[in-house]
Amino acid sequence: MALNSNPLPSWNDTATRNAIVGFVEAVTLEGGPDFVPPEERVATFDNDGTLWTEKPMPIELGFILQRFAEMAAQDASLRDKQPFKAAYEKNYGWLGETITQHYQGDDANVKVLLGGILKAFAGMTVEDYTASAHTFLHHGKHPTLGRIFAECGFLPMIELLRYLEANNFTTFIASGGDRDFMRPVTWTAYGIPPERVIGSSNALRYMPDEHGGSLTYQAEPDVFDDGPIKPVRIWSRTGRRPIMAAGNSNGDIHMLQWAGGQGRPALCLLVLHDDAEREFDYVGGAEKSLDLAKEHGWTVVSVKNDWATVFAE
Amino acid sequence: MALNSNPLPSWNDTATRNAIVGFVEAVTLEGGPDFVPPEERVATFDNDGTLWTEKPMPIELGFILQRFAEMAAQDASLRDKQPFKAAYEKNYGWLGETITQHYQGDDANVKVLLGGILKAFAGMTVEDYTASAHTFLHHGKHPTLGRIFAECGFLPMIELLRYLEANNFTTFIASGGDRDFMRPVTWTAYGIPPERVIGSSNALRYMPDEHGGSLTYQAEPDVFDDGPIKPVRIWSRTGRRPIMAAGNSNGDIHMLQWAGGQGRPALCLLVLHDDAEREFDYVGGAEKSLDLAKEHGWTVVSVKNDWATVFAE
Repeated sequence: MALNSNPLPSWNDTATRNAIVGFVEAVTLEGGPDFVPPEERVATFDNDGTLWTEKPMPIELGFILQRFAEMAAQDASLRDKQPFKAAYEKNYGWLGETITQHYQGDDANVKVLLGGILKAFAGMTVEDYTASAHTFLHHGKHPTLGRIFAECGFLPMIELLRYLEANNFTTFIASGGDRDFMRPVTWTAYGIPPERVIGSSNALRYMPDEHGGSLTYQAEPDVFDDGPIKPVRIWSRTGRRPIMAAGNSNGDIHMLQWAGGQGRPALCLLVLHDDAEREFDYVGGAEKSLDLAKEHGWTVVSVKNDWATVFAE
Repeated sequence: MALNSNPLPSWNDTATRNAIVGFVEAVTLEGGPDFVPPEERVATFDNDGTLWTEKPMPIELGFILQRFAEMAAQDASLRDKQPFKAAYEKNYGWLGETITQHYQGDDANVKVLLGGILKAFAGMTVEDYTASAHTFLHHGKHPTLGRIFAECGFLPMIELLRYLEANNFTTFIASGGDRDFMRPVTWTAYGIPPERVIGSSNALRYMPDEHGGSLTYQAEPDVFDDGPIKPVRIWSRTGRRPIMAAGNSNGDIHMLQWAGGQGRPALCLLVLHDDAEREFDYVGGAEKSLDLAKEHGWTVVSVKNDWATVFAE
């Protein structure tokens, strides 16, 4: 990194930015007390609310609702059943509540929603699902920001990914979101290839045929990659314990706690959404993580104060 | 790749080598009929018998036997129970049969063995397991080759990995072997980082504590990454369908069948162990894959005829 270059131009010159740069300089200083060899420099990022916007509802949910609405349009018997009913009637309140309830520890509606998702994509091949998600992400528009979904990433966080990589970190996405939904956008939006995307998924099965066979989603879940499952999934994919982790909600607590370890330094970032003007202002689902940030000394990133720019032009 | 350099010096100038070079040249020729963009150039390699030697028994089995024998030495009640009995008595015949029976479709003994493995490592942290595997791999010696296990990789296959990477392929290991056993050796032996190692694993659980928590193996399996599970695991880790796959046994059939797809070219390699002098000579567990190689036109790699050198000096 040239001395005069600014690797984080969309970050204000605040204590948060200093904490980030100070950490990276410490772990890369050969012979220094906090030096970490390049092969151990693993950084993991949550996606929804950390790398891109998640309000008024997670972007993936829009994709799922579109599918539910299509199904209810074709099959009238689905129109008085949740979650198809909410999608068909465009009653997004039911879905917002479902997410907030999940972060508060109540998963009753989440189960109804997940049951619908399993039904919605069962039997689809991975290639068809990828193509469908790609179209949605690269052509659909965010309902209030008016941006193409693929352009809803936070520019300061994308700069942070590049800054870390320039310092020989290997970066990963570790999200509760659906792995195969994210992959068609992570490379263009964040510069992260599909093998570095960790997330939830439904079960897959290989079905042989005369053209080499195909992989199709089954009507059963595989893993919901949230909370204490995040460290398990990160290890299974990376084989290393991260020294840097970034999240924004209670679902990221275990990932943030686990970062570092074995006497190594760690940088734990928690994005606080406090900018109603440029993005959104909310703490729902993040209360406990914000309390723990104080207790553990995690670095809270204020969208309002720490980011000079939120989205790329 | 400079015109005068030979990227595969340990390969003889045979039809097999020509098939490999011809494939790589075809998929990298921009504007050519078989061109595949760099981001779709994914290559997957089985490990045991494909990247390194698997006889007289898989290297991982030696590690497990060592642990079984330690357990039986400490607990006499284990000494008349399989698989501890075989390990304690050094009766490796029982174990060789178990592997052969598995490739022939009979998994009764495999289940006994897997039960023992679950018991052997339950409660261990990922860091302790890694350290133990590292010691075994970098200090233990192969019983007949006399080489350190970490040096039992096939030099021609390692050259092939580098040749593919020089042509913008992303390479992965997709093995039935234990993921976390392989990782401490894949980087030094094959140049493959831990995030590109796909394999079997036992279940893990995150256990919080005051030092950030730890991940420990549970006494339950997660995935046995063999046969029709290989394409599922490859997709889950890579998000792409490989255009090149290499294996050596019936457990690799589905991975080899799945490679390519969607009208794209594919290179499928099957390593045939036919060199008793320099390595081993056997087809047990590979019979069906060898039949299918003829049917599908997979490229059979003869250790005896196609490899000028088997192991690095």
